[in-house]
Amino acid sequence: MVVKGSDAPVDEPAARRGRRPGASTTRDEILAAARRQFAEVGFRRATVRAIAAEAGVDPKLVGHWFGGKAELFVASVQLPFDPRVLAMRIADGDRAHVGERLVAALVHGVLEDAVARGRGVALLRAVATEPQLAPLLRRLVVAEVLTPVAHAIGADHAEVRASLVASQMVGLLLMRHVVELAPLTERGADELVALVAPTVQRYLTAELPFE
Amino acid sequence: MVVKGSDAPVDEPAARRGRRPGASTTRDEILAAARRQFAEVGFRRATVRAIAAEAGVDPKLVGHWFGGKAELFVASVQLPFDPRVLAMRIADGDRAHVGERLVAALVHGVLEDAVARGRGVALLRAVATEPQLAPLLRRLVVAEVLTPVAHAIGADHAEVRASLVASQMVGLLLMRHVVELAPLTERGADELVALVAPTVQRYLTAELPFE
Repeated sequence: MVVKGSDAPVDEPAARRGRRPGASTTRDEILAAARRQFAEVGFRRATVRAIAAEAGVDPKLVGHWFGGKAELFVASVQLPFDPRVLAMRIADGDRAHVGERLVAALVHGVLEDAVARGRGVALLRAVATEPQLAPLLRRLVVAEVLTPVAHAIGADHAEVRASLVASQMVGLLLMRHVVELAPLTERGADELVALVAPTVQRYLTAELPFE
Repeated sequence: MVVKGSDAPVDEPAARRGRRPGASTTRDEILAAARRQFAEVGFRRATVRAIAAEAGVDPKLVGHWFGGKAELFVASVQLPFDPRVLAMRIADGDRAHVGERLVAALVHGVLEDAVARGRGVALLRAVATEPQLAPLLRRLVVAEVLTPVAHAIGADHAEVRASLVASQMVGLLLMRHVVELAPLTERGADELVALVAPTVQRYLTAELPFE
């Protein structure tokens, strides 16, 4: 499965990655069609054939650029930034405020950004109904962002800490933007950060109740 | 919509609620068929007709006992206890340990109980994909359990506090039992309570960063 939403077709040798004119547009059109199809009929019922038809391209071209339906879904929910860069930016700085930096990154970068929020909600919806997509959320959120943050600040039990942070962050996305709990939708970004940051700070830096 | 999974048919006068022999069994068979159908094809594609056929009863009898598909779904995910009794039990006692009592109730009563966990996951999956079911989760979790707890301990901003607690509790259910994050599935019930209770305690009793 393609980890990053690379601009290069699957298996294309590095030497051939020079972009053909118009290739990016075709790729973007396939992705846009994929996002519409996944949103409309869900991951299970969406087909590469229907997505290709909507984008006006041969299904083989979808295979060429993305590999398959699961990889196409990954690319369609990929956030428009490098997760490792984000992790290092969160980890960098005063350890006593790492929770605040992490929650601010989620709130400003995902919850308050229409495009990123839409992709996050699509990922959450797909994972909730398709067990085979669970590894995708584990990787995109926990393995690529939260665990590297815990490691970078030198925390023990990095995986447990990252998982606890994930439970709070994904729960916040779910309750604010899927369930749309009014007391959360009515709160502004800065208030949300102030409310939730101490939780994440504790998960990342407090002593844990086991060896 | 029927709030509680009452044993009495919809609109039946109280004086007529004497149980007919076999009525409870039929009701249970309809509920069991409903749980299987909702789990198999999801809320949207499930039909009262198919559920009635699987239970071997006339669809009108489903209407008689439950009222409609949404009410049938509510009954199928209803936890086997009265939410108001649960809320009062959590609120009752030392205010400094209300977070621990609340998380212990979720972990032991839902996460570690196969039947309750199955219903919780079914509710979460349905809400994630069917926006029309969001009010159901708002009511079953936030309005009937968490907000009454916050009110009972005399907290200000009870709705905000209840919503924050919901984001952590539902996020924990999601990440441990839908996404199945290994660092969470590997932790025992008591460890989970110790890890998460301080978060809930803070959401319920700490001073909030606004008026």
